[in-house]
Amino acid sequence: MMSKGRLLGLSVGPGDPELITVKALRLLRAAPVVAYFVAKAKASKGQGGNAFGIIEQHLDLAQQLLPLVYPVTTEKLEPPLSYEDVIADFYDTAAEQVAEHLDAGRDVAVICEGDAFFFGSYMYLHDRLAGRYEAEVVPGVCSMLGGAAALGSPLVYRNQSLLVLSGVLSEEELTERLSGAEAAVVMKLGRNFDKVRRVLERLGLAERALYIERATMAQQRVLALDEVDPMASPYFSLILVPGQRWRG
Amino acid sequence: MMSKGRLLGLSVGPGDPELITVKALRLLRAAPVVAYFVAKAKASKGQGGNAFGIIEQHLDLAQQLLPLVYPVTTEKLEPPLSYEDVIADFYDTAAEQVAEHLDAGRDVAVICEGDAFFFGSYMYLHDRLAGRYEAEVVPGVCSMLGGAAALGSPLVYRNQSLLVLSGVLSEEELTERLSGAEAAVVMKLGRNFDKVRRVLERLGLAERALYIERATMAQQRVLALDEVDPMASPYFSLILVPGQRWRG
Repeated sequence: MMSKGRLLGLSVGPGDPELITVKALRLLRAAPVVAYFVAKAKASKGQGGNAFGIIEQHLDLAQQLLPLVYPVTTEKLEPPLSYEDVIADFYDTAAEQVAEHLDAGRDVAVICEGDAFFFGSYMYLHDRLAGRYEAEVVPGVCSMLGGAAALGSPLVYRNQSLLVLSGVLSEEELTERLSGAEAAVVMKLGRNFDKVRRVLERLGLAERALYIERATMAQQRVLALDEVDPMASPYFSLILVPGQRWRG
Repeated sequence: MMSKGRLLGLSVGPGDPELITVKALRLLRAAPVVAYFVAKAKASKGQGGNAFGIIEQHLDLAQQLLPLVYPVTTEKLEPPLSYEDVIADFYDTAAEQVAEHLDAGRDVAVICEGDAFFFGSYMYLHDRLAGRYEAEVVPGVCSMLGGAAALGSPLVYRNQSLLVLSGVLSEEELTERLSGAEAAVVMKLGRNFDKVRRVLERLGLAERALYIERATMAQQRVLALDEVDPMASPYFSLILVPGQRWRG
């Protein structure tokens, strides 16, 4: 009986192609099938998405590509459509596309920007497939640590607590969770930037806050919080509130 | 005039030597001086500490080694000694040892287990030296993401919040901070294990909690929470409370 292929969740880091691990690179090069998530708009132009751009240079012509194309680019859909249903269907279908290769005995490397288990889309394939197939996940450098390094700022000292939040949360929830935070990271800013800045100012955290767009990518930008145009902040931007320096 | 050397903070990942990034490896190999922190007990046996063990295979005889030997192994010292004073003096001295090489025009690679800016000792050198010398920090795979990958468990979904805590905190503080946490990681367990487990049980988080020792290292161990011997849990152990699965 033919043995099944292995599911590989390969984290490729925050953007700088050199921030991939030696292990992810080795497994990537050996994988007969390389799967990646990509937005519809990019896919229709023949492009491959952020994670794909990071590893494209390492691919071989013999490797089969499996683009997994997101059906939507926004979470706000017209009723009766719901984002939750549409995206769940998409992940079901994507999982079956991957499973076809696994059933045929081919290992599939699913590449993931940042870290696969830290807000990564790979998680939804993993939850659907890891029970049926052998799975291995290679951890990676997540965007917030890429951001801290690019900013040259230690993130969290000694016994401080770190809170990682999504900018999507409501102003009330952001305020409540960030109150009393010793160190914090707010991800997924984009259109949420203005709201997040207001909350940080109100809590007295704005002076310590650092803003970075597309950390470690070629288009990386660092701006002071009050220089950011709230309408132009991309999804891949972060605010770091480093812990108070401990003299150590 | 001779130019000064560069300070390099090189994250080497959580333990598996293959989890170093391509960038850290390149800069490590090119550095004339490699500095590393090591406990006194290990140093006196000629050993090099965890981070050193990860990268030792890549070193060249021409590279100069600079061990930075911790003067204490516990935070509980007999008065009039205070841990804070002793350790601050130590970092002052270590920074000057590194600075001597930088002043002589030699780059110094300070290697750090996990990620340099995520609870890493390198931060204390960085804070002392980055104003005086050119510094570059290469981010790495932190222990909690190494742990999640090794456990095969997604850590945090979609718009969930993640809280990262030190097990050193008091029972009251752990309880307060962990109440309402959607996903959490408790680091630095060791002798704090029993206290942390009690808190998780009381908050109803114990069923979701996963325990791992020395994630991704050769001696990695995964145990059920109620199988852990509280007296034998090492410092390098973690508890992960993954966020509730989102169907995605």
